[in-house]
Amino acid sequence: MDMNSEANWQRPLFDDRLTPYIEIDAQRLEHNLQRMQKRANEAGVALRPHIKTHKSVWIARRQRELGAKGITVSKPSEGISFIRGGERDLLLAYPVVQAKSITELLRQAAYHCAKITLIADALHGVTAIAEAQRLQPDCELAVAIKVDVGLHRVGVNPDSDDALILAQALKKESLPFAGLVSHAGHAYGAGNLSAISVIAGQEAQLMQSLQHRLHEAGFNFCPVSVGSTPTALAAQVPPGIDEIRPGNYALLDLTACRLGLSQVDELALSVITRVVAVNEHFAIVDAGSKMLSSDKGPHGTNASGFGVAVDEHGNTFDVSKLSEEHGFLIYQGNAPRIGSLLRIFPNHSCAVMAQSDSFVLRHADGHAETEPVSARGNFN
Amino acid sequence: MDMNSEANWQRPLFDDRLTPYIEIDAQRLEHNLQRMQKRANEAGVALRPHIKTHKSVWIARRQRELGAKGITVSKPSEGISFIRGGERDLLLAYPVVQAKSITELLRQAAYHCAKITLIADALHGVTAIAEAQRLQPDCELAVAIKVDVGLHRVGVNPDSDDALILAQALKKESLPFAGLVSHAGHAYGAGNLSAISVIAGQEAQLMQSLQHRLHEAGFNFCPVSVGSTPTALAAQVPPGIDEIRPGNYALLDLTACRLGLSQVDELALSVITRVVAVNEHFAIVDAGSKMLSSDKGPHGTNASGFGVAVDEHGNTFDVSKLSEEHGFLIYQGNAPRIGSLLRIFPNHSCAVMAQSDSFVLRHADGHAETEPVSARGNFN
Repeated sequence: MDMNSEANWQRPLFDDRLTPYIEIDAQRLEHNLQRMQKRANEAGVALRPHIKTHKSVWIARRQRELGAKGITVSKPSEGISFIRGGERDLLLAYPVVQAKSITELLRQAAYHCAKITLIADALHGVTAIAEAQRLQPDCELAVAIKVDVGLHRVGVNPDSDDALILAQALKKESLPFAGLVSHAGHAYGAGNLSAISVIAGQEAQLMQSLQHRLHEAGFNFCPVSVGSTPTALAAQVPPGIDEIRPGNYALLDLTACRLGLSQVDELALSVITRVVAVNEHFAIVDAGSKMLSSDKGPHGTNASGFGVAVDEHGNTFDVSKLSEEHGFLIYQGNAPRIGSLLRIFPNHSCAVMAQSDSFVLRHADGHAETEPVSARGNFN
Repeated sequence: MDMNSEANWQRPLFDDRLTPYIEIDAQRLEHNLQRMQKRANEAGVALRPHIKTHKSVWIARRQRELGAKGITVSKPSEGISFIRGGERDLLLAYPVVQAKSITELLRQAAYHCAKITLIADALHGVTAIAEAQRLQPDCELAVAIKVDVGLHRVGVNPDSDDALILAQALKKESLPFAGLVSHAGHAYGAGNLSAISVIAGQEAQLMQSLQHRLHEAGFNFCPVSVGSTPTALAAQVPPGIDEIRPGNYALLDLTACRLGLSQVDELALSVITRVVAVNEHFAIVDAGSKMLSSDKGPHGTNASGFGVAVDEHGNTFDVSKLSEEHGFLIYQGNAPRIGSLLRIFPNHSCAVMAQSDSFVLRHADGHAETEPVSARGNFN
């Protein structure tokens, strides 16, 4: 990666706890959160951050304090963790295919007076949600229609009549309609800023065109929510969008750097690791795939290695391979010293956060505190 | 993978809990544990299974009941979890580079009368261990010398005098010498059974030759411990080996199948997942990289996808890509039904177990119980 030679990777390293661990730079985090909130405010759109990136109740609270309007979650159990953590307006951006998968979420939401927005992309989902609503009638919920804008994962084909059919089905079930949501995750595979901007523009056009058809069919309330960090950072929010739902922007990672979405000095998450062996082939550190994940980056990105390791002087070493508890670093000339600390910037922050029960929040003065990764392991 | 068409992947699927979750087939697990114990018994060697694969106190206990002599762990905190779980003879197969990383392990070991064997591959490590021993003199410990037999991760070069220098250093520090240990992890990259057998033979020769030099230098007690599932399954244990330390054999995975080490009907771990969306490109399931990991397999293996998904009729679908909470399945002809259950056999069981706080142990009669992944998240 040619970022190695030019960028300034150096950060102070504090030998105050056992390694490896996730360190989040409090100043960089705050900068990243403020930048996205400012961008949303300037565009006049709501920011509903996806918390799957950090899974931290503490970070979500800070996002809310800065102006975020609700949060986005991936799984019902993730939602429950965040309701318990104080969130009261949640979008579950995951298709519901059976009522029982959300009954506990709706029960917790009703108890804590939290509002839940669900998504549907098939009649099967509308039926499941209606059944869940009947089981938990006290929960305030609404249902948005998920639109496939190119990732081909979940969502109706925007050229079909499926969204209209689903909106009618929601009406029939007396489920409040919450508009259209999309996730242009394929933007990660676009490779550069201008290609990502094109995808953001196409997404906005597809969504507005579908919104227009729903308006014509009598669904006058039909807000448009889009969400991905690449499209949110590559260009200004296009006209006609009501809400954005980026997640990764809070922490960023090497994937964001490679796509031109982030500078090295905005990377808020790193893993602090220690050199445990040096041989003529590699320097070995105590962070492996169980800490860093084996992720090469989301959706079509594919890094050559697993991160960049940086020593106290700013020298960098590519993390060329991983075993479960070891990272293999390439070095030329001087190897890092056995026992010394290194900081690894990984490919994919969301994947790293999901490995650990806690992270260390490091402030500018070196002071640090440990915070739980509140929703780690919440798969159901 | 050409295993798809020929092998019988079909297993009963029980819709009795929320998805996704890890299911371990109790019968297959027992078969795998018994087979390895029998192999060790027949060769007259001790089996000290590496518990990093399953991280389960329950499975370790079963390994012990069948005849295992102690366990192998990767990190001190993993060792602490297993001491608390009843293990009393642990090899920490990880280099110690600072005393404070093992003081809590030694304290717990002393309190519970557990014996700890550590490894060293550099003088730095001997010094750190000696310091830790001085801080916890009540802990019964010994130190083995780690030998690099080709993975180039941790270990002394067997052609150098390093092992002799370290054995002398241990003597000087009055640290009991526990012999030689190796891990031929590079066997995973060898590709097939006969190439793996060659590596197992080379490893035994290197270790015996080094043992001979240590004997000549007066270190008469110098047992040899080797350990990896590929070398343990590809060939009978070579002469001159005293202990084997395989881990993956308990659960196995697609990597083991691809290497010819396992039949499909020996795969004890799978992930139960549900179809949440179907479009013209993919069937989407609720297990993504946060559940399955992004692992393509250990050490130089590199699968084309992320697993094989099997429906209730035995039809298979390749898991072609993953996002964090979604798996993308390729289908030809009939897509699996939305809401239906599938079983995914993953590339790398050790990586999957490390994602979850629990697993479901499924017995032959369909009855199931939930067991904790006791040492998940134990990185330090």
